[in-house]
Amino acid sequence: MDDSLPAVDPDVAATAADIAEMEIRGAATIADAAAEALAKQAERSEAASPKEFRRQLRAAAKTLYETRPTAVSLPNALRYVLRGMSGETVSELRASTIARAEEFQVDLAQAQSKLGEIGSNRLRDGDVVMTHCHSTDALSCLEAAVEDGKEIEAIVKETRPRKQGHITARQLRELGVPVTLVVDNAARRYLDRADHVLVGADSIAADGSVINKVGTSGLAVNARERGVPVMVAAQTIKLHPDTMTGHTVEIEMRAEREVVSDEERADIAGEQSDDGLTVENPAFDVTPPRYVDAIVTERGQFPPESIVILMRELFGETTGEPWAP
Amino acid sequence: MDDSLPAVDPDVAATAADIAEMEIRGAATIADAAAEALAKQAERSEAASPKEFRRQLRAAAKTLYETRPTAVSLPNALRYVLRGMSGETVSELRASTIARAEEFQVDLAQAQSKLGEIGSNRLRDGDVVMTHCHSTDALSCLEAAVEDGKEIEAIVKETRPRKQGHITARQLRELGVPVTLVVDNAARRYLDRADHVLVGADSIAADGSVINKVGTSGLAVNARERGVPVMVAAQTIKLHPDTMTGHTVEIEMRAEREVVSDEERADIAGEQSDDGLTVENPAFDVTPPRYVDAIVTERGQFPPESIVILMRELFGETTGEPWAP
Amino acid sequence: MDDSLPAVDPDVAATAADIAEMEIRGAATIADAAAEALAKQAERSEAASPKEFRRQLRAAAKTLYETRPTAVSLPNALRYVLRGMSGETVSELRASTIARAEEFQVDLAQAQSKLGEIGSNRLRDGDVVMTHCHSTDALSCLEAAVEDGKEIEAIVKETRPRKQGHITARQLRELGVPVTLVVDNAARRYLDRADHVLVGADSIAADGSVINKVGTSGLAVNARERGVPVMVAAQTIKLHPDTMTGHTVEIEMRAEREVVSDEERADIAGEQSDDGLTVENPAFDVTPPRYVDAIVTERGQFPPESIVILMRELFGETTGEPWAP
Amino acid sequence: MDDSLPAVDPDVAATAADIAEMEIRGAATIADAAAEALAKQAERSEAASPKEFRRQLRAAAKTLYETRPTAVSLPNALRYVLRGMSGETVSELRASTIARAEEFQVDLAQAQSKLGEIGSNRLRDGDVVMTHCHSTDALSCLEAAVEDGKEIEAIVKETRPRKQGHITARQLRELGVPVTLVVDNAARRYLDRADHVLVGADSIAADGSVINKVGTSGLAVNARERGVPVMVAAQTIKLHPDTMTGHTVEIEMRAEREVVSDEERADIAGEQSDDGLTVENPAFDVTPPRYVDAIVTERGQFPPESIVILMRELFGETTGEPWAP
Amino acid sequence: MDDSLPAVDPDVAATAADIAEMEIRGAATIADAAAEALAKQAERSEAASPKEFRRQLRAAAKTLYETRPTAVSLPNALRYVLRGMSGETVSELRASTIARAEEFQVDLAQAQSKLGEIGSNRLRDGDVVMTHCHSTDALSCLEAAVEDGKEIEAIVKETRPRKQGHITARQLRELGVPVTLVVDNAARRYLDRADHVLVGADSIAADGSVINKVGTSGLAVNARERGVPVMVAAQTIKLHPDTMTGHTVEIEMRAEREVVSDEERADIAGEQSDDGLTVENPAFDVTPPRYVDAIVTERGQFPPESIVILMRELFGETTGEPWAP
Amino acid sequence: MDDSLPAVDPDVAATAADIAEMEIRGAATIADAAAEALAKQAERSEAASPKEFRRQLRAAAKTLYETRPTAVSLPNALRYVLRGMSGETVSELRASTIARAEEFQVDLAQAQSKLGEIGSNRLRDGDVVMTHCHSTDALSCLEAAVEDGKEIEAIVKETRPRKQGHITARQLRELGVPVTLVVDNAARRYLDRADHVLVGADSIAADGSVINKVGTSGLAVNARERGVPVMVAAQTIKLHPDTMTGHTVEIEMRAEREVVSDEERADIAGEQSDDGLTVENPAFDVTPPRYVDAIVTERGQFPPESIVILMRELFGETTGEPWAP
Repeated sequence: MDDSLPAVDPDVAATAADIAEMEIRGAATIADAAAEALAKQAERSEAASPKEFRRQLRAAAKTLYETRPTAVSLPNALRYVLRGMSGETVSELRASTIARAEEFQVDLAQAQSKLGEIGSNRLRDGDVVMTHCHSTDALSCLEAAVEDGKEIEAIVKETRPRKQGHITARQLRELGVPVTLVVDNAARRYLDRADHVLVGADSIAADGSVINKVGTSGLAVNARERGVPVMVAAQTIKLHPDTMTGHTVEIEMRAEREVVSDEERADIAGEQSDDGLTVENPAFDVTPPRYVDAIVTERGQFPPESIVILMRELFGETTGEPWAP
Repeated sequence: MDDSLPAVDPDVAATAADIAEMEIRGAATIADAAAEALAKQAERSEAASPKEFRRQLRAAAKTLYETRPTAVSLPNALRYVLRGMSGETVSELRASTIARAEEFQVDLAQAQSKLGEIGSNRLRDGDVVMTHCHSTDALSCLEAAVEDGKEIEAIVKETRPRKQGHITARQLRELGVPVTLVVDNAARRYLDRADHVLVGADSIAADGSVINKVGTSGLAVNARERGVPVMVAAQTIKLHPDTMTGHTVEIEMRAEREVVSDEERADIAGEQSDDGLTVENPAFDVTPPRYVDAIVTERGQFPPESIVILMRELFGETTGEPWAP
Repeated sequence: MDDSLPAVDPDVAATAADIAEMEIRGAATIADAAAEALAKQAERSEAASPKEFRRQLRAAAKTLYETRPTAVSLPNALRYVLRGMSGETVSELRASTIARAEEFQVDLAQAQSKLGEIGSNRLRDGDVVMTHCHSTDALSCLEAAVEDGKEIEAIVKETRPRKQGHITARQLRELGVPVTLVVDNAARRYLDRADHVLVGADSIAADGSVINKVGTSGLAVNARERGVPVMVAAQTIKLHPDTMTGHTVEIEMRAEREVVSDEERADIAGEQSDDGLTVENPAFDVTPPRYVDAIVTERGQFPPESIVILMRELFGETTGEPWAP
Repeated sequence: MDDSLPAVDPDVAATAADIAEMEIRGAATIADAAAEALAKQAERSEAASPKEFRRQLRAAAKTLYETRPTAVSLPNALRYVLRGMSGETVSELRASTIARAEEFQVDLAQAQSKLGEIGSNRLRDGDVVMTHCHSTDALSCLEAAVEDGKEIEAIVKETRPRKQGHITARQLRELGVPVTLVVDNAARRYLDRADHVLVGADSIAADGSVINKVGTSGLAVNARERGVPVMVAAQTIKLHPDTMTGHTVEIEMRAEREVVSDEERADIAGEQSDDGLTVENPAFDVTPPRYVDAIVTERGQFPPESIVILMRELFGETTGEPWAP
Repeated sequence: MDDSLPAVDPDVAATAADIAEMEIRGAATIADAAAEALAKQAERSEAASPKEFRRQLRAAAKTLYETRPTAVSLPNALRYVLRGMSGETVSELRASTIARAEEFQVDLAQAQSKLGEIGSNRLRDGDVVMTHCHSTDALSCLEAAVEDGKEIEAIVKETRPRKQGHITARQLRELGVPVTLVVDNAARRYLDRADHVLVGADSIAADGSVINKVGTSGLAVNARERGVPVMVAAQTIKLHPDTMTGHTVEIEMRAEREVVSDEERADIAGEQSDDGLTVENPAFDVTPPRYVDAIVTERGQFPPESIVILMRELFGETTGEPWAP
Repeated sequence: MDDSLPAVDPDVAATAADIAEMEIRGAATIADAAAEALAKQAERSEAASPKEFRRQLRAAAKTLYETRPTAVSLPNALRYVLRGMSGETVSELRASTIARAEEFQVDLAQAQSKLGEIGSNRLRDGDVVMTHCHSTDALSCLEAAVEDGKEIEAIVKETRPRKQGHITARQLRELGVPVTLVVDNAARRYLDRADHVLVGADSIAADGSVINKVGTSGLAVNARERGVPVMVAAQTIKLHPDTMTGHTVEIEMRAEREVVSDEERADIAGEQSDDGLTVENPAFDVTPPRYVDAIVTERGQFPPESIVILMRELFGETTGEPWAP
């Protein structure tokens, strides 16, 4: 029924193309560009009627959305801006849309540092924090704590297969944080020394599950068993709107070579047929909310079980596509 | 008070030297050599009195023991043989000691295959087994199951830092077992597909704890949370006699380079002083008995909480050194 | 103080009578009729003042409510409509009330199919679902999944004493779903094969508890122990507004003959006096929120711990009777 | 930047002084006085512009807040009133502020009895309730239950070190409730007889944690293990707004003499230097939300995981100081 | 290698035939007959040498064993008697065997009442006991308690599909015990009233698992969650010797008609092909030791984790067939 | 049938009287005296036949036992000695009995220091240990650790109502151990700092339960929740032989005045009738084995689930009175 949506502004089309070709990438960058594009569409609209204006904006949102429908921050940006579009005249609609987009962009620009301060408030002087993988949201909590003058130590899991723990370790060393680097298998042993587990999130589902780098859920289960609280640092653009309607998050399966080199594979398979040897490399796993103590966002901290309410507040209940009327 | 123990037979001394220099290595090989040496001492003894004979045997045990006091199978072999030394005359003592040593050696030679059959009995046709690290005891269970005609699949954790999972995978492929290899971080996700977790043991403590390759305890905690039973395959020579008297098992810390290459380390440390970056590499961890469903030995299967009784039955309660009278 | 409420429209009175006499029954049917009746009262009102109009509507709500004060969907319908009554004039009040009632009815008519789609999204191709009792909300999830082309299998608990599992089994067979029927006692054994537990709800409390057919709570506890997620399908008319103010849901005790025939009873009691033999037959039980992974409604899915917020959003915080001003 | 805030009304200053000097004390009394003071400031304002009016009110709020920044009810009162200040003219602002303050005060006056009724609804005739410490909110639930004609029994923990259980026991006896008084150590044994654990709260955090008299968390863990639900009675003024931004609640360490008399201390220390003997006396502890079944407030009951949403609704998301614009 | 075993006494052969044809049935009756038969074989033996005597006895044991290799009490009886066969001469062997058989039979005859007294000691005056299925061992505990003058109440689960709970209820009524009969689904609700769960066992495994009527494991998991201890009453003839060597106990699948009548089946299948409807009816399930508090035998009570030691003490470690030398 | 037991030696009678009048008290002292008395009876016996000798010894055991049938160490001493009585002639019986009594006394004299060494082995340098109540067995572990040169810190719970924690604190200070004294309510908070919980035992039951000062079970449950292992120090004379036959340990209810002074009672009861105020003061509680990690005895450490085997080994299976034949 939306086939008759009008053409979009060339700059919107250009932004869409850049997202599609991954010239624009990263959750925050995509979200920012999408909001910017909607503002531009609103600014340049020569719509003759409020209805026409709304159709133009929806067309722009649809164009942008379809470039990467699985990028969780993109629909969030579109939904947030369109929800702020209000008024009875074209000029009111234009103004409200532009203002809303700007609000989104301003909030977004400050989100990580706000989140960092909130997360930092959960840490006390002398605390030892165990990390998994590399997350700039999680790091911003530690950075804020260090800036607050708190002495923090870190136990960094290397995070096979890609060893993003090395990046985390390096950045923590740059902040002057003492780091103990361990293999993932050593996590339970070192949890006895940890006061917090701190991780980021790839996305967060409406049922409170945290989708994050594979290994997070096993760590969280062990942290609970050892009595160590688990804190997830995630900006609100990571809240996955499709999950409100029950959709599960597809887990990306990555290249086998991240796990074994060709040589290692040949060595394992030996003279056997290769068929019986499968190497599976899921990028993420799902941590149930009962193993997470707090999700820290730029809007405050939340138990995972109530994050769906924030999701509805920011992005609406609408169960359809982001550009649905 | 034992300083006056007599000199030992040259062959005993030679065996002791070989153990000390790690010419003789591996839990079973050491145990076999130790029993053999005691039998030789008994055979060649020219003791004038039962008392003298006993002192000679104790001297031999002491000499052997002191070569590698932390090798768990060595005191077990010595204790087992000396507990069988009985009789009123030198010739009775000699005969009983030799017979006992032979019994020990015969049992030992069959232990792994017996254990394998017992462990195999716990597996049903079609089962999927998750493994951690590489253990010949664990593999013998899978081998026996395959020989029994059961279809078994394996999910093999790679087991950083040394990736012994590759060895396990290769040997399972040689048995024709389909293998899915995953990084350690993916274990919880794949537990949903597993019917059993099967691991070996470095040693087993009197309180029922299982000391095994680092990562075992975290896996066991997750297996319980996912409803998957955990089975430990371990010959009785792995039962740690010192733990009966409360001693804890010292966890070996291995070389940092198993975890990071020099290059990786330099990369992480960056321009920072190196002092704040520690790489810790414990070889083992400790799994509490409540996360283990069965310990499979060549003497049958046991809940971990009752293994101490088997320990006492085989090696005695004596809390002193293995050569104590 | 409300004794002076005005008389209600005859059609409202007729609807009330039908509800009282169970001519109108079933949660959704009652709710629909109640909203319809309020719309009729509004339409026919000849009130001279806004105040008078409001009193008429409250009188209608009171009349309807008192027919079956324990039917959970009835107060929800009344509260929802009355919360939408707004305006400064009688005609504005009338219009808003009628519109709100219509909105309620439209939403209600679509609720089950919307809920079904949302619930279906949680299911993956190849999943095995265990059910308890018979729930059209739960079935609509399975139906939507089948329509989506997903292969679903079901393990159906017979659900003593009334064996509503047979109805579920039949309807699933009609959908072409392969069914394994088991007695309730066999549930834990078959949970090892299940990917989800899926049940409906009689009502849902503000503390996140799920009131459902007796046996649900025992199943949920076992599902958690076996690592199987539990999903509750329930339209929002099942949210129990009285529980916001701490009221507990009275559990209906049903006839003893559902459990034992007279003959069986006589056989058990034997020559004993009958007094010492009691047969208790509670219809429902209460599952704490910590054993439920998601409540699926037509408004999206929610962790049970946040459902109270949806309850407040839809039906207001008002702690009094639904017709309270 | 707020240094230029205008002077406050003398009565506001007087109230501030009384709070500072603890002439005004107790969570409810402070909150009431703060709302009253803002109303007075609004009433007497001679501001020439809306902006000036707002600055005056913010100045008043700041003055009041700074008297006892850790008193949790004070910022709640200020935030609640300031959030209701709306309008385009000074007179509209004045009217709305005064009305909002009055609303706050009226609600506050009724909060405990409303909460009591809600909490009472969770109790059934014949229930046995275990209490810890002394809380008027918790008692109001029991009082309402008794007034409803329910037979309630209480097991009262004495609550070392200050034995506030004695106060609870006395007040329950005055209500005619049969009381069994036990030492804190006996709690687990008596949980077998209890149908509920009922406690108050010092404050409640955004992550759902309950800060209450030390011993609450240990009791809650045992109650879960024994299958007894835990209910926390707390007015909404106890919701700790700073915790929304991750701040943890500082636990007051009280005087050592509450724990040991000088004589007892001397007796323990003996001839040893006193240095090795520390007596620690924390006033409160933190109970994680997973051990709490319901928080009962005057606004209804909530699972602890969703209380943050009520917090946001009442006191706003603003992460800054209560007087921030 | 045993093919050359000598022929057995005709009476032994007759007993074997009776067991095979289920003329002799029931765990205790079979065990008694088997011991009796071995005694007869010993008595009538005209063996010329100890070796010949032993071969005769082993032949008898083999003949008896092969009649019903899955009857758990049969190998236990055989193992127990053969373990007592000792001596250097035929006449010594004969005497010891006969004495051992008699000892076994005497112990067996007293086992249930001894067990009943031991189980009764765990019950206190006024206790409420929940039962599942029907077990004479479990009933003997309740009977002993009643005879001791303790007031006991019972909550009896009906135990679908065969409703053996009715038998339990009747026998308890005959003892004068007040009975509340409930459907299996109501168990969790009634656990709040129970002080104990008391069940029998079909057999008990070396890993401490309890194999009992299907539904036991689900009940035990719920009992732990509700804080109610679980007690299993089982004579030592129920200890399953094969499980010492890892064998799992095959779960009997019983007739579908115990679950659905033909009519019910037709009704469910409707016009669909019957193929998609499976009715599964496992007779037993497996309760892990961690959900059992005590196993009560005639030899005393044991935590399930140590029952393997009793098993070894009574029936030996021998991993082969019961007649193995 | 034992009514005809012969008269006992006057010294045995004197010892019995001293135990009855509590001139001889304390578990170890009673046990030592009882063994001594049996030895004396054996020494002085002028029995004409082995049968007569045995009857004399049984008479002595009966006389001693009946003085304080609930003192757990008394029957243990009697059983241990009588189990060692063996031989075919009176003189053999005498010698064996005397030797066995001496062995018992020697072992007993060394038990606490042996146990202390074993317990000490579980502690590492730098560990923090939380204690409850006062136990010389527990203290001997800490003393041995200090003597071993380990730095140990203690967190001492005061242990209401009798504050035996003060004794523990004083004795630890005498050993130079830094002590933090806290009220019992603060235990969970301080568990975060503890590496072990270490307690003694009043007695230990065959099902692995630990009966100890009230508060132990609540502490153990919290320790498990916080990931802190629990260690119980108890000499084998604390193993309660009656519990092998299912007997539960009667929990002593102590004087109300240990909990409230008369003044406090009057203050609580106020003008109410006193009847509604009960003060209960149980001395002990029961910790299930699943919350205990190890029981440390002078015979080694054991998981609580296997202690019944040690009990049988030391004191026999005999289910009758200690003097039964």
